[in-house]
Amino acid sequence: MGWGDLGVFGEPAKETPNLDQMAAEGMLFLDFYTANPLCSPSRAALLTGRLPVRNGFYTTNGHARNAYTPQDIVGGIPDSELLLPELLKKAGYTNKIVGKWHLGHQPQFHPLRHGFDEWFGSPNCHFGPYDNRERPNIPLYRDWDMVGRYYEDFKIDLKTGEANLTQLYLQEALDFISKQQASQQPFFLYWAIDATHAPVYASKQFLGTSQRGLYGDAVREIDDSVGKILKHLQQLGISENTFVFFTSDNGAALISAPKQGGSNGPFLCGKQTTFEGGMREPAIAWWPGHIPAGGVSHQLGSVMDLFSTSLSLAGLQPPSDRQIDGIDLLPVILQGQLIDRPIFYYRGNELMAVRAGLYKAHFWTWSNSWEEYGKGIDFCPGQSVAGVTTHTQEEHTHLPLLFHLGRDPGERYPLSFASGEYQQAMEHISGLVQQHKDTLVPGQPQLNVCDQAVMNWSPPGCEKLGKCLKAPESDPKKCSWPH
Amino acid sequence: MGWGDLGVFGEPAKETPNLDQMAAEGMLFLDFYTANPLCSPSRAALLTGRLPVRNGFYTTNGHARNAYTPQDIVGGIPDSELLLPELLKKAGYTNKIVGKWHLGHQPQFHPLRHGFDEWFGSPNCHFGPYDNRERPNIPLYRDWDMVGRYYEDFKIDLKTGEANLTQLYLQEALDFISKQQASQQPFFLYWAIDATHAPVYASKQFLGTSQRGLYGDAVREIDDSVGKILKHLQQLGISENTFVFFTSDNGAALISAPKQGGSNGPFLCGKQTTFEGGMREPAIAWWPGHIPAGGVSHQLGSVMDLFSTSLSLAGLQPPSDRQIDGIDLLPVILQGQLIDRPIFYYRGNELMAVRAGLYKAHFWTWSNSWEEYGKGIDFCPGQSVAGVTTHTQEEHTHLPLLFHLGRDPGERYPLSFASGEYQQAMEHISGLVQQHKDTLVPGQPQLNVCDQAVMNWSPPGCEKLGKCLKAPESDPKKCSWPH
Repeated sequence: MGWGDLGVFGEPAKETPNLDQMAAEGMLFLDFYTANPLCSPSRAALLTGRLPVRNGFYTTNGHARNAYTPQDIVGGIPDSELLLPELLKKAGYTNKIVGKWHLGHQPQFHPLRHGFDEWFGSPNCHFGPYDNRERPNIPLYRDWDMVGRYYEDFKIDLKTGEANLTQLYLQEALDFISKQQASQQPFFLYWAIDATHAPVYASKQFLGTSQRGLYGDAVREIDDSVGKILKHLQQLGISENTFVFFTSDNGAALISAPKQGGSNGPFLCGKQTTFEGGMREPAIAWWPGHIPAGGVSHQLGSVMDLFSTSLSLAGLQPPSDRQIDGIDLLPVILQGQLIDRPIFYYRGNELMAVRAGLYKAHFWTWSNSWEEYGKGIDFCPGQSVAGVTTHTQEEHTHLPLLFHLGRDPGERYPLSFASGEYQQAMEHISGLVQQHKDTLVPGQPQLNVCDQAVMNWSPPGCEKLGKCLKAPESDPKKCSWPH
Repeated sequence: MGWGDLGVFGEPAKETPNLDQMAAEGMLFLDFYTANPLCSPSRAALLTGRLPVRNGFYTTNGHARNAYTPQDIVGGIPDSELLLPELLKKAGYTNKIVGKWHLGHQPQFHPLRHGFDEWFGSPNCHFGPYDNRERPNIPLYRDWDMVGRYYEDFKIDLKTGEANLTQLYLQEALDFISKQQASQQPFFLYWAIDATHAPVYASKQFLGTSQRGLYGDAVREIDDSVGKILKHLQQLGISENTFVFFTSDNGAALISAPKQGGSNGPFLCGKQTTFEGGMREPAIAWWPGHIPAGGVSHQLGSVMDLFSTSLSLAGLQPPSDRQIDGIDLLPVILQGQLIDRPIFYYRGNELMAVRAGLYKAHFWTWSNSWEEYGKGIDFCPGQSVAGVTTHTQEEHTHLPLLFHLGRDPGERYPLSFASGEYQQAMEHISGLVQQHKDTLVPGQPQLNVCDQAVMNWSPPGCEKLGKCLKAPESDPKKCSWPH
């Protein structure tokens, strides 16, 4: 989902009354970012509070390449990483993930091995349908075991876009919340729905209801579901004791437009890029009785802050034996403070850009290669800024391109290198970059090796269902990451 | 001002709390249009309820050229046109215009000859400073007489952007409202401020207060002023008896970006074009006690509707001896109805595009000429859609380009000509166009002839001020309209 996909963020169809209302009752973040322009690394960052380059969710197979966790990926979340649910357990929390995990699908990466107590969802994206000989369909798990596969047992009609998965995920959320309320147990629910990821889907009652086509139908179903979750919290009388945050893991995928692609509002490009459209996200905090209604914040925020903020809410300290990139947003949310901190925009192993205040410096620019672009893969459809949306990797480390995101949110007008404003802003940003690089200890890259043998051939529980498939022989290779 | 310039329309700095609040208390129009991508024709349409091609505010000097009323224009609003204030007089209204008139500056076009009772403002844009030999500075009038000139008596500091004009216009508005309330007289106030038109200006207390630079400072001052006007109505106890509408006369001028240019949100291109960025506008209706708070409408609306709606509010009928393009929006505003009607996008003498429902058909595409583009004049900076943002006038009348503005608000993906959806939508739109063209009686074009002699050399009242200048000999020529 992109920054521009909600009514409250200016989507012209304005079809998200529940999320708009959530913002009206809570705090809207206008300058909130993912940790990566792609899903898996962003989710790993959310759950670890650390940049992908630290937690291992990146590749060194090529320079500045986006990587994720397709089902032939060998790596996943390292045991050495401490995940939010692992830490929350210490404060008595019960943790559930509903939906897409995406932090690795081999047994050692299973979410229940990393702090979650319950899971209903899938380890990878709902791509497919596959043929079960070259590639198996993605399984869905309930807790430790698979309970079926996409397209086989959990239908997604690729022609109509119909699938009832968001409803299943909603029911899981409501049931879990009810159960926790009944047992008076504190809980962490990671509600990781994926209906807006291509192939986009929606339940029958939402199909055709949006001005925006299927993508809008999916957004409407998510909006409706969020409304039901918030209402459920209120009806159970625990809304004033439950902190809720809504955001996304990367900008809208414009390659899927217009049928299955969302909106990044006035920003440049989309998913896969380190322009604003790739990483600035809708973000809303909600906590009635604590967050003043109708709040708006320009705090530079990150999905990694949800790690630190959640720990703070639970009265826990973040781990002190490692670098944590997330910050505790409670002073921002509860007292309206603004905390000075930069945003680092990585693509794989390269720091592409840095934002400090309203200034954003690009050290490298790249949309995608001419080769990919020639195949019709366009991360910036209808947009082209000379020297900025480049189709070759352009290094600007000696003379970064600098934008003022207040006057120029669309990153169209680099500041003059000769201006005093440029000099002053770059002096500040260069210091931040130097400090960041000097102290950076990169993690072991997890997204380098692919192997057909590790795909979801025989997930745990497949025997009971008669759903085991025979894996091919192991043949590990360097993964190919074209972008 | 552009669609994307207000917080409630998704401007990322979200610096318009008063206009956002106005929308929260009233009704937000998401699909509201000017009658032209340029100022004068749009204002003439607002005040006559008629398309510029009918009321004469267009040129036939070139095909599909935008024209307006610079101070060497000979034409202006014809006497045969009936303006909103002329009609409102019949219902006992006192009418005031504050700010830019722009419907011609020769004596016969004076706003007090066309229904207004009072005027404080200028006949033309605040361009300049001029040299008073080749071109005089633009005068400001109080009622019949000039009271000074821009840059001479009414300062605009082109270096700092400082000017207190919006404060003067605000005070005029507040005083007029007070006077009318005191005398219990119904009133029509046309508050036509122009601070966001280049050269953009703001008062000292707003300079440097916006994230967005000088343009944002100007928007903030306008926002603050609107807030003060609404508060004034409330304090006088007449807010429930006063209908207020906020909108703009064309999309944000992207040629002035980033320093003096606004935002058209997710839409394509800007001022001067018939893409959505050129003509879709922010629009808010406010009338406490009558309009349900927080309303949102997808009614296709037009500035011309303000003519018909205002007459309806005053209990008057629109003239029956001529074609009126505006419709009465009261059923939309008060009862939430949706009225089926098309939007016609003209550029000069050519119908460039038509919107019906969510479909928009382009019969002609043009941004500007290669020659102008080569000079750095770009109405679509950072945007380029092949075959759409063309630099030659491209005719598509036989096979129009069709967009679905719900799925594709950015006009990036023309529908396939072979699709059933295309056929069905175009059949409907073709009928509308045929009907429109069959009944169209074009007005005498007013914007064809320019003459240095008609400039503001010696406006009425100049003698008293010692501000009369000697006009050169009359030398009428065809005006040159490059866009």
